[in-house]
Amino acid sequence: MKGTVGELGEFGLIRELTSRLTTTPAVRLGPGDDAAVVAAPDRRVVVSTDVLLEGRHFRRDWSTAYDVGRKAAAQNMADIAAMGAVPTAVLLGLVVPADLPATWPSELMDGLRDECQVAGAAVVGGDVVRGDTITVSITALGDLRNSDPVTRSGAQPGDVVAVTGWLGWSAAGHAVLARGFRSPRAFVEAHRRPEPPYHAGPAAARLGATAMTDVSDGLVADLGHIAEASKVRIDLRSGDVDVPSQMADIGQAVGVDPLQWVLNGGEDHAIVATFPPDVKLPARWKVIGEVLNPSALPQVTVDGAPWPHSGWDHFGAGAEAE
Amino acid sequence: MKGTVGELGEFGLIRELTSRLTTTPAVRLGPGDDAAVVAAPDRRVVVSTDVLLEGRHFRRDWSTAYDVGRKAAAQNMADIAAMGAVPTAVLLGLVVPADLPATWPSELMDGLRDECQVAGAAVVGGDVVRGDTITVSITALGDLRNSDPVTRSGAQPGDVVAVTGWLGWSAAGHAVLARGFRSPRAFVEAHRRPEPPYHAGPAAARLGATAMTDVSDGLVADLGHIAEASKVRIDLRSGDVDVPSQMADIGQAVGVDPLQWVLNGGEDHAIVATFPPDVKLPARWKVIGEVLNPSALPQVTVDGAPWPHSGWDHFGAGAEAE
Repeated sequence: MKGTVGELGEFGLIRELTSRLTTTPAVRLGPGDDAAVVAAPDRRVVVSTDVLLEGRHFRRDWSTAYDVGRKAAAQNMADIAAMGAVPTAVLLGLVVPADLPATWPSELMDGLRDECQVAGAAVVGGDVVRGDTITVSITALGDLRNSDPVTRSGAQPGDVVAVTGWLGWSAAGHAVLARGFRSPRAFVEAHRRPEPPYHAGPAAARLGATAMTDVSDGLVADLGHIAEASKVRIDLRSGDVDVPSQMADIGQAVGVDPLQWVLNGGEDHAIVATFPPDVKLPARWKVIGEVLNPSALPQVTVDGAPWPHSGWDHFGAGAEAE
Repeated sequence: MKGTVGELGEFGLIRELTSRLTTTPAVRLGPGDDAAVVAAPDRRVVVSTDVLLEGRHFRRDWSTAYDVGRKAAAQNMADIAAMGAVPTAVLLGLVVPADLPATWPSELMDGLRDECQVAGAAVVGGDVVRGDTITVSITALGDLRNSDPVTRSGAQPGDVVAVTGWLGWSAAGHAVLARGFRSPRAFVEAHRRPEPPYHAGPAAARLGATAMTDVSDGLVADLGHIAEASKVRIDLRSGDVDVPSQMADIGQAVGVDPLQWVLNGGEDHAIVATFPPDVKLPARWKVIGEVLNPSALPQVTVDGAPWPHSGWDHFGAGAEAE
């Protein structure tokens, strides 16, 4: 495909984007009408929305359009999974400059589509608008399949804290890219394209998880949301949190304690949950801490002590070009 | 409330926005977790998304934040109604500059909330991000209540075309504002805050509507979407389309044929549908044309002849500051 989105025009772009989509049995009516229709067999629908801006949440020199699509869909569907639901559908609100090559939104859509397929979902609709800053607004829907939603507010003192998925890989990749490098590839790829463990969310609900979230702002920060909503304290054991040797090597190379990436790095969309202490967890879950009664200490501690590094404020000055 | 959104911070702004919300029985889990949970008693959910940009879809000197909120929710919930569904929930993706007064997003949220209440829905979640251009991304959900969705593709030759709601009022108000005036108020208000006839959508589904859409791009353009999807021609009778006398007066004052506003003006979100010829329509529906077999003529004609004014391309140069 040649030319810019301005040359293609609104309806031409919409045609191009929708022509790339695949469907699933849950899609009762796909793009092209006033609204889409998606099956909701549970009689409840889980829904979440996120906005990604160029220069703030992604950079075109670091990530391809395809990667941005994968990542945008992944972070939203991780929110669905973190409620214990199965992702069913994604919608795209897209702002594009008129001089943007038309290949960019097309490859973005390919990324959205492929990530949806990983999770068993499909892109069912959207809107495209011309504007100055590329903006990718994603809404994801999901179905609870008769499980109750697992919120952030159900953690009980005595529960164990367990995590599944990747931790710190995206942050390590970001550190590498920010220093102008393109390798090690595994971390750079993890930053460009997270791989949330979608299946783990509904599985945790069936295992009796009492509270759950995905790790988008950092493990300590996101567990802080659970601790606050559940009115408990959470203590992590740093020795039980894996720091892969390759990550330790990069940390040494760039002068960063890799435990910071693991405990504070967001965007990998691991899933962290609390479970009753007698739970039998499958091997892919790692128990890394426990839920305690609230105390004078901060709501999340590491090895019983305050963890000095703060969470992530998306409005803070440090958030640029993340 | 004082200060800017930057001073309030991400979490402060989210707290402020969510504190303004009301709920409905359909909201099983509102804002504050990874995702919201909304009842979908029909086992299908209708969903649509739209993006509004400052300078393109609204202007802060023409519309208050409250009006933008009302309008953003209205245009999305009109899409839900135009499928024959009842709106249940709305999500907001919001981009705001750090120096924006914090009152602006708060009043936007009040507008969203109040328009949702008109339709029986509630705001259930969202995302706020800092960026240069105010961007309002709305997703609306709805429930079909056991009606089949009314798409654009079911119109049959012999059907009548009927409309309910306002036509041309927003366009006339836009013409007034664009010339630097603030009155007549009725049209300016209609531009700032459309009033879609939400109830008419599900009612039309029950009355046996064969195709339906809301008028967002203009009556002729939107009926063109029905004609194309249904592979029919649609002929409108201009004498049956109401042109209010006040609108005729403004048209004379600004030198515009008011029929252009009525037939080409979007954004009032009237609902137009096709029905079998023997349908008994309630008084608030006006029959304005009929569905014919396709011919060499354009897909939508007025009094049997081509209508010379084209539809609306949101990427076109004329679309600025609309």
